[in-house]
Amino acid sequence: MNFETIRYEVKDRIATVTLNRPEVFNAMNPLMMNELIAVFDETDRDDNVRVVVVTGEGKGFCGGADLTKGADIFDKNKNGSAETDSPIRADGSFDYSKESARDGGGKLALRIFDSLKPVIGAINGAGVGIGASMLLPMDIRIASEKARLGFVYARRGIVFECCSSWFLPRLVGITKALEWSFSGRVMPAEELKAGGLVSEVVPHEQLLPRAYEIAREIADNTAPVSIALMRQMAWRGLGMSHPMEAHRIESRGICTRGRSPDAKEGVKSFVEKRLPEFACSVSQDMPDYFPWWEQPTYS
Amino acid sequence: MNFETIRYEVKDRIATVTLNRPEVFNAMNPLMMNELIAVFDETDRDDNVRVVVVTGEGKGFCGGADLTKGADIFDKNKNGSAETDSPIRADGSFDYSKESARDGGGKLALRIFDSLKPVIGAINGAGVGIGASMLLPMDIRIASEKARLGFVYARRGIVFECCSSWFLPRLVGITKALEWSFSGRVMPAEELKAGGLVSEVVPHEQLLPRAYEIAREIADNTAPVSIALMRQMAWRGLGMSHPMEAHRIESRGICTRGRSPDAKEGVKSFVEKRLPEFACSVSQDMPDYFPWWEQPTYS
Amino acid sequence: MNFETIRYEVKDRIATVTLNRPEVFNAMNPLMMNELIAVFDETDRDDNVRVVVVTGEGKGFCGGADLTKGADIFDKNKNGSAETDSPIRADGSFDYSKESARDGGGKLALRIFDSLKPVIGAINGAGVGIGASMLLPMDIRIASEKARLGFVYARRGIVFECCSSWFLPRLVGITKALEWSFSGRVMPAEELKAGGLVSEVVPHEQLLPRAYEIAREIADNTAPVSIALMRQMAWRGLGMSHPMEAHRIESRGICTRGRSPDAKEGVKSFVEKRLPEFACSVSQDMPDYFPWWEQPTYS
Repeated sequence: MNFETIRYEVKDRIATVTLNRPEVFNAMNPLMMNELIAVFDETDRDDNVRVVVVTGEGKGFCGGADLTKGADIFDKNKNGSAETDSPIRADGSFDYSKESARDGGGKLALRIFDSLKPVIGAINGAGVGIGASMLLPMDIRIASEKARLGFVYARRGIVFECCSSWFLPRLVGITKALEWSFSGRVMPAEELKAGGLVSEVVPHEQLLPRAYEIAREIADNTAPVSIALMRQMAWRGLGMSHPMEAHRIESRGICTRGRSPDAKEGVKSFVEKRLPEFACSVSQDMPDYFPWWEQPTYS
Repeated sequence: MNFETIRYEVKDRIATVTLNRPEVFNAMNPLMMNELIAVFDETDRDDNVRVVVVTGEGKGFCGGADLTKGADIFDKNKNGSAETDSPIRADGSFDYSKESARDGGGKLALRIFDSLKPVIGAINGAGVGIGASMLLPMDIRIASEKARLGFVYARRGIVFECCSSWFLPRLVGITKALEWSFSGRVMPAEELKAGGLVSEVVPHEQLLPRAYEIAREIADNTAPVSIALMRQMAWRGLGMSHPMEAHRIESRGICTRGRSPDAKEGVKSFVEKRLPEFACSVSQDMPDYFPWWEQPTYS
Repeated sequence: MNFETIRYEVKDRIATVTLNRPEVFNAMNPLMMNELIAVFDETDRDDNVRVVVVTGEGKGFCGGADLTKGADIFDKNKNGSAETDSPIRADGSFDYSKESARDGGGKLALRIFDSLKPVIGAINGAGVGIGASMLLPMDIRIASEKARLGFVYARRGIVFECCSSWFLPRLVGITKALEWSFSGRVMPAEELKAGGLVSEVVPHEQLLPRAYEIAREIADNTAPVSIALMRQMAWRGLGMSHPMEAHRIESRGICTRGRSPDAKEGVKSFVEKRLPEFACSVSQDMPDYFPWWEQPTYS
């Protein structure tokens, strides 16, 4: 895979995605957005990838939109699109069918949400705006002691983006989500940990080693098809109103996976006190009921 | 605004609502309930109000229903209503159309839920029953070290009120919500903080200064229209089953707000390292898609 | 009640359910599953039971499925059922109507979810797989310092069971739920407490005394009908998208319970500073709108 704005490496069944525009603190631009979306297609496709680690090159994680480009940066009509591209019609109604009608960060968030592999955010420095929001649909976040994040939307005069109004309250609770996004300030790593947004704060040089340690434990011990199913079961379960809905999906999963070679290897390796070697692959062996949901469309 | 049971002041773009029946520990009565509902209409209307702080006069925050009035205090038929006013029909069915059919605390909670301005609860003393529950739909809660709260419903033989069965598990998690409301005991400030219900416990005399400091940061740095939208996006986002639903609202918000003068001022003030002066007002400039939801009715 | 795999005792209005196969670390088998489901019918029925405490005999809490029985333990077709019993049809579709189509753990979880009495898990030792998952639908969990739990599904090649994909993210947040179930490792008591899954870690010999102390506070101070209603209001409230839905149920509850003898006794006992004696019983006095929901079916 060739990318311009990110670096992509796979080693020991762990993929590393590195935001790679260090000269502008890895500020997001449309190409980086598209490359990030594309890289999750690749990690999903490649059975040799068990876990994805996302980090940033240099001092920053991701500086959000590049505000030095001028005051019109958030104005879609002046920012690369003609006025006629505006999704806001003359009568004020909204044309959901236009590509310009979609928050780009939201497209990235939804792509990460659908990932078949666990995603670990390794926050090496400052992340603001979309540089903070894009971390939310990842599964696990750890931070260098130099990390800082800011949900600065209200300070810039805009609103939640990147599906952060859905993710942030679910990750840190509604109170902390409101506190952080009403204030809009940039917060140090320890405050992020106290609020539950990052699981660990580690010395800067330990950031990637620790991320790989977490990834390693998953890659060495667990069945990739189980992990792919469970990732979707847990995230999508958040939208279920009654545990019976989960019971239906789980019953199907237990029935299907319980008779799989993986379940037998899982028991055998445990009894024999050795690491398991699971034969089923995400590319070949996802059960036929997957996906069990109807994919929502933008309209 | 003239109120009998509360005090209302606006200063430096922060409104302070003070429960003001200190001789009865600010016990709730029907007039106070109505005045509290009315005051949020006023804070919504007044562009000079950016943040609302709610506190209590004297030693208590709010002592709930005045239990010294007798054992029938929770009996609507004996408490100011004729038997014929009962919403429970002879056949046992429930007449949702009667005003007496509604929990008064719930009406207050729903009004706070709809607030266009952030609401900070500054808990100066004891709050029990509705005196505790009415704090839940607020956005941020801080406590004096003298604060205590009790979700005492089961000790009084009644049940969750004030929409607390919806709010409490969302603020502190289902386990803590059950623990606290099964026990029904009154808990000190530090336990409330450990459970995540209050964000900070401060020395008693620092309560209002700290509340104003939090309010000040919001009022000085953020766009009021952004805050009004984001408050509803976050709270209402709790009911969304899939992030795509948030993506739709956010896309519309980013598109509309991104071309607003506020977004340009947000970027300019940041680049120029000065406080922003946002021109858009809640009374005039809420986008035309607001409200994007259909208001649920009581029936 | 006579049980083979569990012990059941009622004393001082507290029921104790003890998993009682200590020679196999209380490993779950089909009989234990059925007896556990049956015991919650009994605790619901008996007005003399106010609170249920669940614990394990001996060194373990519950060792999950007995993996020494061989690699086919999770394979329903080889585990006591003929191949024709498989709910997976020849065309790959799933026959929800077969009894074998249901995850047994899910049936137990749904039964605990419906309990009319609060359930306290007193975790005396290791719990893995269903031995960990069955604790999730309980209301309060406390742990001996010897307790350990593991959500090991992915290490065995299976997936979430026992409705744990619904419960776990709601109890500890989506991040911790994913971390714990992606890693699949067995975690010590202090980590369970830090993650919010258990409320307290106590010295081993203090486990049951502390569980009874928590149960005692509920049994001595609160109205059993209030508790039964509130338990369902809180858990089912998790599935409500708007507080108005809670307002409807609460209004009905406040109206009905507010005129009950319990509400009067609740106020009187408070004013007289004595323990209350509530007259209403769960077997006789649940309000006629209970249950207010339609019970979902498995299909």
